[in-house]
Amino acid sequence: MNDLPTQLATACPSEFRLHARRRAWTGPTAGMVPGFAQANLVVLPRANALEFLRFCLLNWAACPVLEVLPAGTSRPLVSAPTADLRTDLPRYRVYRDGERTEEVLDASPYWYPDMVAVLLGCSFTADHALRDAGVPVRHAELRRADPTYMTRVPCLPTEHMRTDLLVSMRPVPRGLVSRATEVTMGYVRAHGAPLSARSPAELGIEDLQRPDHGEAMPLGPEEVPMFWACGLTALAAALSARPSLVLSHAPGHMFITDLPHEALTRMDAAHAGHATATQATAGGSVGGA
Amino acid sequence: MNDLPTQLATACPSEFRLHARRRAWTGPTAGMVPGFAQANLVVLPRANALEFLRFCLLNWAACPVLEVLPAGTSRPLVSAPTADLRTDLPRYRVYRDGERTEEVLDASPYWYPDMVAVLLGCSFTADHALRDAGVPVRHAELRRADPTYMTRVPCLPTEHMRTDLLVSMRPVPRGLVSRATEVTMGYVRAHGAPLSARSPAELGIEDLQRPDHGEAMPLGPEEVPMFWACGLTALAAALSARPSLVLSHAPGHMFITDLPHEALTRMDAAHAGHATATQATAGGSVGGA
Repeated sequence: MNDLPTQLATACPSEFRLHARRRAWTGPTAGMVPGFAQANLVVLPRANALEFLRFCLLNWAACPVLEVLPAGTSRPLVSAPTADLRTDLPRYRVYRDGERTEEVLDASPYWYPDMVAVLLGCSFTADHALRDAGVPVRHAELRRADPTYMTRVPCLPTEHMRTDLLVSMRPVPRGLVSRATEVTMGYVRAHGAPLSARSPAELGIEDLQRPDHGEAMPLGPEEVPMFWACGLTALAAALSARPSLVLSHAPGHMFITDLPHEALTRMDAAHAGHATATQATAGGSVGGA
Repeated sequence: MNDLPTQLATACPSEFRLHARRRAWTGPTAGMVPGFAQANLVVLPRANALEFLRFCLLNWAACPVLEVLPAGTSRPLVSAPTADLRTDLPRYRVYRDGERTEEVLDASPYWYPDMVAVLLGCSFTADHALRDAGVPVRHAELRRADPTYMTRVPCLPTEHMRTDLLVSMRPVPRGLVSRATEVTMGYVRAHGAPLSARSPAELGIEDLQRPDHGEAMPLGPEEVPMFWACGLTALAAALSARPSLVLSHAPGHMFITDLPHEALTRMDAAHAGHATATQATAGGSVGGA
């Protein structure tokens, strides 16, 4: 009999979510349910939601929006129709007036009718593709929250929302840097290509072994740190406007969607059987009598 | 001395916008100012704006958002900082309770403090790239509004916004269909690849020579009709909620931005000198000692 983490590493998304809902799994989601997109969650008052989406559209690499729910609702009809965002993440954080106040396992008490839930892509989504391409992903192997850092690279601000970019780091063997770039750059709704910064110092990161969130990740002698924009940027932006209430996943404790990870290489809302989003591939037949 | 359309076909964006502002040019923008992105404009009350962005994110191929302005403002700081959306398009339409009421050359009188302007990508943007790739673009050569059609392909709806997809059509020589697909598929903020439908009938278009907007475009014997999702879909969605007031460009009379057309092949807000959006290209150097 396998242990629970090993079981969950091969569960389907709805099985995983059921474990989270029953509080049987309250840990990080790295390496869980491979093959399916993971998502950041930011829930904020309707009064702040329009500006938040404006911020996301201005800073897409960090804040790729997967789905925005009608105010007060918690069923993400595109990303996972059977899920309930109030209960199906392993762990949540609650922020009041921009400051963290609670960490909880059930967000239901905070889901007021004027709260708008936004799901955003997460770079865990491409971890599976990296592994398939022969690039080891240590935080997923170790099932740890990945190390993330606040940089000194400013995002484009809106009237009340401004933050520097947050990034996640993966140690990559020197010879696989190009491969890792190629694999991830197509994930337009999961932070895409890595940042082109050549060193942590260029990003304003002082000590790689002291991440702002997640766990430190030692670098081997032939490894280089690669950085991707991180969805925690969206949370930082939302908090900067000091809304009365914001909910979010606890860092590394993501929402697991029903979307196959390849869906995040396209901008259209992947939706089984939906014709609108179907587009020709290169060289595909179009028109013609 | 060249005529005005020929002059404008080689103008820079701000020159073109000045002509529109002075009402020296009130015609369509196809083929004008090659090399720069053209945009759809939808301006709607703040009360409808959040749902409108939700609709756009659900139906991205048709409704790729370039920029959302703060309520009541008309300067698109990312797309064209010196422009004024109230005056710099050649021609506008005004809709009240979902019905068209006026066509005007100056939108200033309608720009109330609670109106939110949204710019969306336009397939004219890729016309220049098509020509460079040897694919003739007849509506641009003729400087006509391109033919657009209401289909019977439903978009994903939101609570109050629903419409079928609108498409634009370009006649393409049979041997260049694959090339046209390859060239346009990268324009992720300008409708991307053509639809994969094999015939007008599959899209629910009864008569190609009777477009819903723009001018009919005859097909040569060796030409096939290729269809791209059209930004008028966004207008139709906005109108379906019957807001008290909506402004938009007149079909084919687009906003000409300062963004080079290649900027619409990326999701990030292209912004001169802004470091956040800079991402590595495949094989680029990342990390390092």
